[in-house]
Amino acid sequence: MKYFTGTDQGLDLRQVNSAVEQAFADHGRGLVQMPPKTYVTLPQGDFRTMPAYLPSLNIAGVKVVNVHPDNPSRGLPTVMAITVLLDVATGKPEAVINATRLTDMRTGAAGAVAAKYLSPKKEIVMGVIGTGRQAQAQVRATAQELAIREMKVWSRNHVHAEKFCTMFRETECRCARAEQACDCDVLVTTTPSRQPIVSDEWVHEGTHINAIGADAPGKEELDPAILSRASVFVDDIVQAVHSGEINVPIKNGLFKEADIAGTLGEVVIGRKKRRRPGEITVFDSTGLAIQDLAIAKIAMHHGTAIVLPFP
Amino acid sequence: MKYFTGTDQGLDLRQVNSAVEQAFADHGRGLVQMPPKTYVTLPQGDFRTMPAYLPSLNIAGVKVVNVHPDNPSRGLPTVMAITVLLDVATGKPEAVINATRLTDMRTGAAGAVAAKYLSPKKEIVMGVIGTGRQAQAQVRATAQELAIREMKVWSRNHVHAEKFCTMFRETECRCARAEQACDCDVLVTTTPSRQPIVSDEWVHEGTHINAIGADAPGKEELDPAILSRASVFVDDIVQAVHSGEINVPIKNGLFKEADIAGTLGEVVIGRKKRRRPGEITVFDSTGLAIQDLAIAKIAMHHGTAIVLPFP
Repeated sequence: MKYFTGTDQGLDLRQVNSAVEQAFADHGRGLVQMPPKTYVTLPQGDFRTMPAYLPSLNIAGVKVVNVHPDNPSRGLPTVMAITVLLDVATGKPEAVINATRLTDMRTGAAGAVAAKYLSPKKEIVMGVIGTGRQAQAQVRATAQELAIREMKVWSRNHVHAEKFCTMFRETECRCARAEQACDCDVLVTTTPSRQPIVSDEWVHEGTHINAIGADAPGKEELDPAILSRASVFVDDIVQAVHSGEINVPIKNGLFKEADIAGTLGEVVIGRKKRRRPGEITVFDSTGLAIQDLAIAKIAMHHGTAIVLPFP
Repeated sequence: MKYFTGTDQGLDLRQVNSAVEQAFADHGRGLVQMPPKTYVTLPQGDFRTMPAYLPSLNIAGVKVVNVHPDNPSRGLPTVMAITVLLDVATGKPEAVINATRLTDMRTGAAGAVAAKYLSPKKEIVMGVIGTGRQAQAQVRATAQELAIREMKVWSRNHVHAEKFCTMFRETECRCARAEQACDCDVLVTTTPSRQPIVSDEWVHEGTHINAIGADAPGKEELDPAILSRASVFVDDIVQAVHSGEINVPIKNGLFKEADIAGTLGEVVIGRKKRRRPGEITVFDSTGLAIQDLAIAKIAMHHGTAIVLPFP
């Protein structure tokens, strides 16, 4: 067994997008095993357990990931993760992987795959709501698939938005009011909000939205009226209903499971798609264990490996 | 973060029993969080993911454990396990533990706790059906709680039964036909059988049975008629119905969830008990994540620790 850390260093984002896209394709074809992630609540946060088996990549394992919002005040990331990979043939633990950075990247990759298939254009103006690690990951991954002509960035804290733009000097990037940021081709929301931040009237026809932030019951970023006039795609129906952008509107009777247009996997394999230029499309991302396995498989060729005695 | 291996060396079995007993008590009082274990099927076996949080021990984490019946032919154990422990306050991974041997021991401890409370006597004749690692663990753990006056051991392979007895020279131990082994005070069954091995007519009144082997859908070791005349206690109702000794009889309409007499946790806290000397009691063990956390907490003070960089 080996422990891997620093595996995000030198990863080819294009390769990551491609592996995650393949995982979604397998999901769309019903070829993966992936029980819904389980939540355990701790006094100051929670942790989630995400097992899966991806036959096409011959990879099986589990990611364990926490969400502790007060961690930054202790000098720790809000989200940290470990992935355990098992040998498919024998079940023997093969690798333990520091998956904290990989978690950001695989979520970025899901957004990139969604934008690749659902964006109204190949050259886009990107709206960015929220400027944390995940916003950066979304932009970096999406830049592999689409040409980002301009970014309009909003953060609760103006300084954070300015700092964000300094990270992407190669792209025209400016701080904006939330309303301005939403006037774009591809909008990405990555906040931990429990109240809609994006108003219905700010979103024009033809926009694609990657709704990334909502990943637990009670979280939402979009005015539910947006969902009513959009085609809403999800990563996984069970998880999205439980903890995705649609979870609160469903509880409030403003959206129904039957309103879901399809899964990203179905989009990738061509079974579902954007139907007209003026359509608003939403990708509701909750994060799938198969994304973690797909990136883990690549990550093991990077970073530092420490050999551990087992069994 | 640290990796721990060889942690079973020098563990005090009495201390393990006590920690597992406390975990069951907390379970009986409804003080733990423990989503049912999830199963992922692989071509030659499966793996199970077992998250939990035990507030009284201030411990949270996940065990990942496989079952691959053909592994011995490859020189690997059928069952191997890794436990990941998280810091409760921050969710940070604190420890990765080689839990292969610990899995045997914590299951042994559950049997010992059940026998301590449900055995008809303090000095017992023990019947042993199956002679693998788990049978050994059951005997060693139970010997901490009850005086084993005599063991009668059955294995499909007579040589295995003889070898088993040589491991317990301090106890009177002899190979027996299955029928003879069942004539005892405490019977423990630890086979991977998918057909009942123990006939109803072999089990006399007053026997306590630890039914350990059945831990997945389709497995069973006892004639369902035994369950009908016994008080059946389980470790966890959801898991037992899904994958314990009662799973097949329930599917076949020979046992009902409502027939369950209670949980081991309820027995430990005194809410449920053996009611009369002639009662047959059965403990249906599927294995709980809280047992794994309880033993992990102790195990970290033993064996070898390797410091791993994280995050």
